[in-house]
Order: sequence, then C-alpha cells, then structure tokens
Amino acid sequence: MSHAPLRLAIAGIGTVGAGVVSIVQHHAAMLRQRTGRDIIITAVSARDRTRDRGVSLDAYAWCDDAIALAQRTDVDVVVELMGGAEGAARQLVTQSLQAGKHVVTANKALIAHHGAELSEIAEASNVMLAFEAAVAGGIPIIKLIKEGLSANRYERIIGILNGTCNYILSVMERTGRDFADVLAEAQALGYAEADPSFDIDGVDASHKLCILSALAFSTVPNLQGMHCEGIRNIGADDILAAHELGYRIRLLAVTVQRPEGIELRVHPALMPQENKIAQVTDVYNAVHLFTSHAADMFIEGRGAGRDATASAVMADVIDIARGHTMLPFMVSAQTLARAQLVPLDAFDSAYYVRLRVRDTAGVLAELTRCFADHDISVASFIQHATHPNQEATIILTTHITTEAKVRAALVDIKALSSVVAPPCMIRIEEE
Amino acid sequence: MSHAPLRLAIAGIGTVGAGVVSIVQHHAAMLRQRTGRDIIITAVSARDRTRDRGVSLDAYAWCDDAIALAQRTDVDVVVELMGGAEGAARQLVTQSLQAGKHVVTANKALIAHHGAELSEIAEASNVMLAFEAAVAGGIPIIKLIKEGLSANRYERIIGILNGTCNYILSVMERTGRDFADVLAEAQALGYAEADPSFDIDGVDASHKLCILSALAFSTVPNLQGMHCEGIRNIGADDILAAHELGYRIRLLAVTVQRPEGIELRVHPALMPQENKIAQVTDVYNAVHLFTSHAADMFIEGRGAGRDATASAVMADVIDIARGHTMLPFMVSAQTLARAQLVPLDAFDSAYYVRLRVRDTAGVLAELTRCFADHDISVASFIQHATHPNQEATIILTTHITTEAKVRAALVDIKALSSVVAPPCMIRIEEE
Repeated sequence: MSHAPLRLAIAGIGTVGAGVVSIVQHHAAMLRQRTGRDIIITAVSARDRTRDRGVSLDAYAWCDDAIALAQRTDVDVVVELMGGAEGAARQLVTQSLQAGKHVVTANKALIAHHGAELSEIAEASNVMLAFEAAVAGGIPIIKLIKEGLSANRYERIIGILNGTCNYILSVMERTGRDFADVLAEAQALGYAEADPSFDIDGVDASHKLCILSALAFSTVPNLQGMHCEGIRNIGADDILAAHELGYRIRLLAVTVQRPEGIELRVHPALMPQENKIAQVTDVYNAVHLFTSHAADMFIEGRGAGRDATASAVMADVIDIARGHTMLPFMVSAQTLARAQLVPLDAFDSAYYVRLRVRDTAGVLAELTRCFADHDISVASFIQHATHPNQEATIILTTHITTEAKVRAALVDIKALSSVVAPPCMIRIEEE
Repeated sequence: MSHAPLRLAIAGIGTVGAGVVSIVQHHAAMLRQRTGRDIIITAVSARDRTRDRGVSLDAYAWCDDAIALAQRTDVDVVVELMGGAEGAARQLVTQSLQAGKHVVTANKALIAHHGAELSEIAEASNVMLAFEAAVAGGIPIIKLIKEGLSANRYERIIGILNGTCNYILSVMERTGRDFADVLAEAQALGYAEADPSFDIDGVDASHKLCILSALAFSTVPNLQGMHCEGIRNIGADDILAAHELGYRIRLLAVTVQRPEGIELRVHPALMPQENKIAQVTDVYNAVHLFTSHAADMFIEGRGAGRDATASAVMADVIDIARGHTMLPFMVSAQTLARAQLVPLDAFDSAYYVRLRVRDTAGVLAELTRCFADHDISVASFIQHATHPNQEATIILTTHITTEAKVRAALVDIKALSSVVAPPCMIRIEEE
C-alpha cells in the first residue's frame, strides 16, 4: 500500500461536491489516521467559477473543461459529480479509467446505463470504479452486497430508494392531504425538483434498483424491461383505505431471483403496517436484503443530502487510499449474465383496486362478475355509505392472482357504463 | 493481489465451524468468481475427531493441538472458533499473527480483553486480524464502522447485541409470562445456555459493545469501568407497566462520545414503543449508529446462529482473499487512546421505579418526600387499585435527573417501613 498522498480531482462542485471538499478540508487528520496517508484535492472543475459554495477552492487547480481532469498527471482519483448518463460525465469517466485513474462517482444514471462497459474499462486498466454514493447515500448498501455479505447468495431485495416519494407518501399519510398539494409543498421545501418527474415517476428509484440487482445477481445492469411506475396516481383516498385495511403505501423497488428469471420492478405497493419497510418515513431510504446465509438484513438511513452523499463518496475514496480496489460489480464484467426478466404478466400478487362508480342497482353484481370471469377471488371490499344514484368509491382487494388476470378484469370493468373513472390498481406486497 | 489459492486452517469445528466448512465446500465457484482465486481448507483442529458434524473433514489435515496450526506452512489464514479470552485461543491467535498468518476470529471475549495487544502483533507482522463475526453475525457492523461510514466521526451507538435477552424480553412482552418461566423455555429451545449467566447478565453484550466502542472512538478495548447489568430483575409487571406508559423494555448496549468522556453501558431500558430499537424482536440484533455526516443509520439482522455467523467469518476471509487488509482497529493500535469513561453517577436520564409497598395511609406522602428530598421530579405515577392495608405495586417515572440522585432516593425509600421489597429501577432511553 502506498503512503504517498492520494490526489483527488473533483468534477462538479454542487451541493455534494462542496460536501466532499468540506470533509477533505476539515477532517484531514482523521482521514490520515484511518488510511495511513494524506488525502488531498489537486484540481476541480465546475460550471461557474464565481459561485459561493461555502468552501474555498482557491488552493486547487481550476479546469473549465472537466474532461481535461482525466489527463492530469497530478490526479490519482477522479470524483465525478456532474451527473447524466451521457455527455461530459460519461466521457470523463471513460477517459479517466482509460488513463489509469480510479473513479468515484455518485452518478446512478451513468452506472445503470453503462455500468458493465465502464467496469470492463476499469478492469482493463486495473483501477477502481466505485459508486457507493449512487444508491442511498447514508446506507452503504453497495459495500454490504459486495463485501459485508459476500459469502451469501442473494435472493431478494426490497428497497425504498427515493426519498422524495417516501416523503410525499409519509406526509399524505400523516395529514390526509392529496398528492398534488404535498408535492407542491415538497417542491417549496427543496425536497422535490421543479420538474419532479425523475423522482415521482420512479425513474430515479429504477436506476438505483438496476444497480443493486446487477450487483446482487451478477447481471449486466439493464433498465430495459424493468417495470417502472411512480406515485402520481396515489390519492388521499388510497392512503386512507390502505390504512383501514392494515397497510401503508410505499414506492417499492423490488428485485427477486426466481427459478424462471429475475423480477425487477419499481411501483407503489401496499405493505402491512407492521412491516419494517412500511415503517420507513420521510426522506429516509431503506433496504431489506434476503440472503442464503445471513438470512434477512434490514438497513435504513438518509438517502440523500449533502453530507450523507459526501460520506458515501469519501468512503469510496478511503477504500482506494487503503488500496482496497476490486471488481466494480464484484465479478468480472465479462462474466455478467444478461438478466432474464420475469414478465410482469406472470407476476403473482394480491391487488388493491379503487373504482369510482355510479351507485346504481346492479353495479356490484357487474363488478364482481368481471373479477369472477377472470378467475379472480375478491378478498375484501369497502364501500362507504353514499346516497343512492350518486357516485361512490369502491375499494376492494383480491386474493393472490396474476397481473395478467387483473389487467384483463380491469379492461372489462373500465368498459362498464357504471364505472365513471379509470380504475386505480396497486399491488399488495405482503412481506 | 495473489491468484494462488487462499488456504484456511480452522480451529474449533462446532456449529459455526461446520457452517464455515459448508460454505467453502458448497460455494467454491461463487467464492472463486467473487475473489478471483480458490479458497480452500487445508487443516482443521477440534476436540473430538469422531463427532458427526454434518460436513466431511476427511480431505483436511487433522491437528489434535490447535496451536500447531500457527506453524503450518500450508496455511495462509487461521480461523479461530474455539472461544475464550485466554488459553488455547489466545495462544493460537498470538502465535499465528506472529508467524505471519492472517487471523479471522468470532471470539468476542478475546478481542474485548486483548484486542489492542493482538492488533499490535498483527500490525508488526503486516497481517490482518479480522473479527466481524464477534459482533452480531448477520450484521456487518464492524465493516460499516471501519469502511462503509469511514468518513464520519462517530457520536453514539445504541445496540441490541444479545439475541437471548431480546428473545426472552420479546416473549415476556407477547405472552405476559414471567422471566424465569420464559428463560426455562428458551433453554429448552436451545436459545439460552444451561448456564445462562453470560447472556442474561449482560456479559456477552458488554464484550460486543466494548469492541464497537473501541472501533468507533479509537480507544483501547476495555471492559473495566463499563456498567453491565442484565435482565434477571425484569418482571412481567415491568413489561406491562412499560406498555401502559408507551414503552418497551430492551437490553441496550450504549456508547456515547461526550465532551467529558465516553459513556459505556449495558442495561435494560424502557424505550418508546415507536423507536426502531424498541421494535426489534426475538433473536434479532440491531445497531443504531449516529454519525457526523451520514446522520443516523439503523441496521437489523440475525445476531447469531450457524449460518449468519459463518457468513461473517467468510466475509472476512473473502476480504483477505481480495487483498483487503487493514489496521484491525482502523487506526494503529499504538495510537488508540485510553477511554475516559463517564462515571454512571453523572449519567442523566429519566427513570422508571417499581416499588412494593404496604398500602397504608401516608405511604405516598413518604415516597414522594424521598424523591423531593433529592430534588427529583416525578413524571408519572401508576397504582392499580388494591384493598386497603394490603400490599400494592407502585410504579412511577421521573423527569430527567442524575443516576446519583436516584440511587440516593432509593436508599431512603428502601429504608421506609412501608416498603416491603427492594425497589426496582430501570433507566428510560428516550431515543
């Protein structure tokens, strides 16, 4: 192991970048004590040189062109915090690895889209490509999969991987307020972006799940064929009905190794209130990991935020300072299998269905007929009292059936003249 | 990194040892894929050669004397699973490290008593001393402290580190049964030893806490001065009263870095029912870790058992196979500080007190007088209806005060003629 200083270049000095600079500047002695060497920053790159970031960058070489960092001779590790699956971030990471520099990145889109290819370059150059910060900043879940539980076969991962969605669902639950209202508040508080689609439509969670699934099952990260569904359609009615039924609604990221292939899906689900994942609130993230030997392990912590993400970036840097490099996906990228995904139609689950109907004679008979026609057995049924001939909300849950059958039944139901709005269907995840 | 096979010797083939052998035998291809080399067993040692352990040891050299493993030339890593802080285990580990062999151990007593000294030997020989399996088998908490959150200063650890106690308290809570009764059942089920003292008096948890505290705060592991109190005095009454007050009782292992020194204590405590630690049930272990940058991280999993502990042992072996060795206590053992412990008298807490009194006129006035005399403010008070002049159980909680004051008040209370049994005092941990 080298005792020379480990020299970092940081590309992208936004919130997280400033957090990384702050740790390097304020905890130099601790880092030296824990790694046996100095960790220093030699060069930085960002869009706006004049912006006040709360940390001084004066001591570092400034590069207007981030990609130039890849060629600097005074850099051992490039820390990529620019984001984006293509463009400058991809070029910088590729060229840095090719130039024999270690790369630490928080870029989940980049790893989800190009993880295998970048891993091959890292392996060829015998350097590290580390991305702990790409998934659930305050939870070292990537290290747990690659190292802490490395003697296990992985069976199933259930995660809450998007803090924004979890915050919105938690507030809806606590206050009874509706989605749009809570989203607007989250945007005002800075918990959700002005364009919230990346978070609330499940895209962010799907990138993270894609990475975890690839690591756990030694497959090429691949977003294609993953089921990805967000929380836009969850209403205050659903939260309330779920509560009456003993459930909470969470945006789940689930991957399961089955004999017939891998399940890979991001969607809202009802989970029993006493389930650990269901009890995760606000901006926290969590992962419940089921393995062959350590059985189940549950971990919860901050998913994002300047310091938690900077902590993850620096943990990767410290590993490199200690000489702990390894294959980015635990096994050689060339041996990663193409994941055979289980089609969602074959997915077995119980389902929650919310229907808006004109409350006329015979409507219940029609509805239950549609389910029976598709061999679906109804488990519970809630209809709050309404005045006759007005609209009513009907909520029902099914016993375990397949996604294909439920979808077919809902097509029939939607066609009924008494049904006045598109049905809302949410999967029930019992554990 | 070497590509030669990594050769293990295993000392002690009990339940965990057989689990380790099983992983090596049944997951050879997975281990090779994940480390780039073969992991093989060359020699074993155990007390009884004839015992059926469910795994074949025929292919391995058998050593009647475990300590001889330290000198074998066909061994890279000695896996010590004999247990005990002294004797053969200590000799084997010392001599193996001196002979330049890596050591992986599940021996918490050995590390708690001699961790710093053994770490110095490991450092001098430039080999690894790894002990993930010594604390909470299914939870890679040692790796999380040394690596996953290595960019953080650690502030506070609250753990449930003894599965036997947690099982007993969980069953008492669920069934209303008393301690002795549930302990006997736990013994029959194999969850508690014939001599249960090591578990139920908090000794096991104190060894584990000692190790975590040393790692987190870079201090010499030291059991002296630690407060260690078990669960023998917790009655069904206490569990019930705690429930009425909104709490659950757990055996906590707590260490906190304070300006005036380190808190280090194992004792039962009332925790709010909604607290994550309070919700840990049965044989599960958990750790809630509070840090400077990642904020708080909670992790829960199997604390013991053949496979979970073997998983932890093998994770250490895999690290060594990957060439990931580091200072056993994260910093050089010579720089570990002597922990300055905060004396328990200075400890601030709210308290729960159970008293058995003769229910006569004036008894309440006497009791409350004793608290007032020591400047303790009573927060709540429960006395279930009894017939006059009979014995009654009184349960009260205090506002935050110091341990010294509560102890002084309890001395006075014990001396009252109306108090018929020694008072039972339990700390309240609000978060």
